[in-house]
Amino acid sequence: MAAHEAGAEGRVTIAEIARQAGVSVPTVSRVVNGRSDVSPRTRARVEDLLRRHGYRKRSTASPSRAALIDLVFNDLGSPWAVEIVRGVEEAAHGAGVGTVVSAIRGRSGAAREWMRDLRARASDGVILVTSALEPVLHEKLRILGVPFVVVDPAGSPTLDVPTIGAANWSGGLAATGHLLALGHRRIGLIAGPPRLLCSRARLDGYRAALEGSGIAVDASLIVPGDFRPESGFAGCNALLDLPEPPTAVFAASDQMALGAIEALRRRGLRVPEDMSVVGFDDLPEVRWSAPPLTTVRQPLADMGKLAVRTVLRLTRGEQPDTPRVELGTDLVVRASTAVPPERG
Amino acid sequence: MAAHEAGAEGRVTIAEIARQAGVSVPTVSRVVNGRSDVSPRTRARVEDLLRRHGYRKRSTASPSRAALIDLVFNDLGSPWAVEIVRGVEEAAHGAGVGTVVSAIRGRSGAAREWMRDLRARASDGVILVTSALEPVLHEKLRILGVPFVVVDPAGSPTLDVPTIGAANWSGGLAATGHLLALGHRRIGLIAGPPRLLCSRARLDGYRAALEGSGIAVDASLIVPGDFRPESGFAGCNALLDLPEPPTAVFAASDQMALGAIEALRRRGLRVPEDMSVVGFDDLPEVRWSAPPLTTVRQPLADMGKLAVRTVLRLTRGEQPDTPRVELGTDLVVRASTAVPPERG
Repeated sequence: MAAHEAGAEGRVTIAEIARQAGVSVPTVSRVVNGRSDVSPRTRARVEDLLRRHGYRKRSTASPSRAALIDLVFNDLGSPWAVEIVRGVEEAAHGAGVGTVVSAIRGRSGAAREWMRDLRARASDGVILVTSALEPVLHEKLRILGVPFVVVDPAGSPTLDVPTIGAANWSGGLAATGHLLALGHRRIGLIAGPPRLLCSRARLDGYRAALEGSGIAVDASLIVPGDFRPESGFAGCNALLDLPEPPTAVFAASDQMALGAIEALRRRGLRVPEDMSVVGFDDLPEVRWSAPPLTTVRQPLADMGKLAVRTVLRLTRGEQPDTPRVELGTDLVVRASTAVPPERG
Repeated sequence: MAAHEAGAEGRVTIAEIARQAGVSVPTVSRVVNGRSDVSPRTRARVEDLLRRHGYRKRSTASPSRAALIDLVFNDLGSPWAVEIVRGVEEAAHGAGVGTVVSAIRGRSGAAREWMRDLRARASDGVILVTSALEPVLHEKLRILGVPFVVVDPAGSPTLDVPTIGAANWSGGLAATGHLLALGHRRIGLIAGPPRLLCSRARLDGYRAALEGSGIAVDASLIVPGDFRPESGFAGCNALLDLPEPPTAVFAASDQMALGAIEALRRRGLRVPEDMSVVGFDDLPEVRWSAPPLTTVRQPLADMGKLAVRTVLRLTRGEQPDTPRVELGTDLVVRASTAVPPERG
């Protein structure tokens, strides 16, 4: 089924009106929303088509009609998922909008099925939470005329869409700076996947903090990881096997930090007495890791809320102020960091 | 807006047809679904009303129309939430049904707003994940004619609705039996809130296992908790302060087990060398607690999937085989349990 047939489900879309009027989707949105920045002739043509098709505006302000947005994950098993769902649902509910949650990774045809269902339920906007989704999906959403934004805790390179991320470089700088301030001089890094921009940014923040303290970066103290606990476990073991192990480790995700803590526990080493550990994310569970984790907070729920506000602006034909937003990250100091053992 | 005005959004509901025909909602469903167990006269009357109202069946089997179900939590911050969302989304997506996720606790008027939006989006069914929702909500859903089931990991007493829970008593028996088999004789219990049926069932399973091994239940070894980490922390400290502390503790939730492990760590006690700890839930994060937690698995995703199948049966006018289903629980042995120290 082609995009312009979406009206066959009983509701004509703005995209279809735009196609028939030979104007852009934002132009139709402006007419629908009664804005003045449309030429009288275009307005007349669009309004005529809207009437002929019996277009019903699914306004988010009207209490008698339920608007919907789609929130799409690659994988609901992602550690970020629940926090983002929480933020999106809260902001959407506040705007009288229902949140349809989907996951599409690893299921053959799932993206296609989701796109079909999206059309059928005439969803008003889409929030994609993923960095690995095919650009072809973006293109299809554009053709369909459904506004969308990407919430991207992983910070993908150069997405040509409105994107909401977190300040990863600043977070890496703060995590490493905290360890330096405690007196650590040999600080290991368990890095994230190099293909992700957030991994690069956190690594560069780590380097910048060391260099700012006049400490040369020792490449042997940087080990690879993939954000999962298993890779934190392996990375920490690799650091401990060095001739001169670090006294602290910055894991570029909370899950890798948990893996690192377990690696230390298995060797009979205590956190933070024998080794300090800092994570990145501030997932709910690290408040009660043993010990509670010092980490860099990504404001995942706030990112979700901002995504809702942005996508609702887009549905009104407005453009976001800036195509790429980074929300600030904060260091949260708990019990997994202390002065290094030789000074303790 | 009254329930029978739901058709004002452009779609007449089965409940409205039932009201006008003077028959029950399941009867209308049976007509819609072409079943034979309806009298010819009733069928004719209902079919006439369906035609007059231009009723469109929102079939889950039809690929051209998107059905919706609502999944409602008290609080998306619940540790169970993400696993249940995962299961519900997977089963619903497989049936071509979209999942609208909502949370309503602690927001003034949120339940009322949700009910209004539910009508406006003409959701086909509802899955409630909560034991604390007002019975008045159940009554309103009944009046609205929207089929619903309750997923209830907490096991509320005597809900008069189709309910999907977990085998809590068997889980308590298995957790305690595992500790007994390792040689523990003084086993502490950090119990759940006594008002919840699941807390009672887990406690009774604990007692049954002890009594089955000829060990008298020592009331001083049973301390209260509320399922949250803080209460596990406090409960474990209370057990450690006993004149003769236990050698193992069964925490009736994973989050309390994490709190207990942190309490032990702060006293310089090792898990499992100095004390064994068993949890209940098998949340994703306890695979990487330090140490990885031995626990009783609640099949939360499976409970979500079964809820979808059940609510879709109800939308077809079928009744569930049994109003209350308990899915089995399994003991998952990881690294937090070992033989007691005096034998180790």
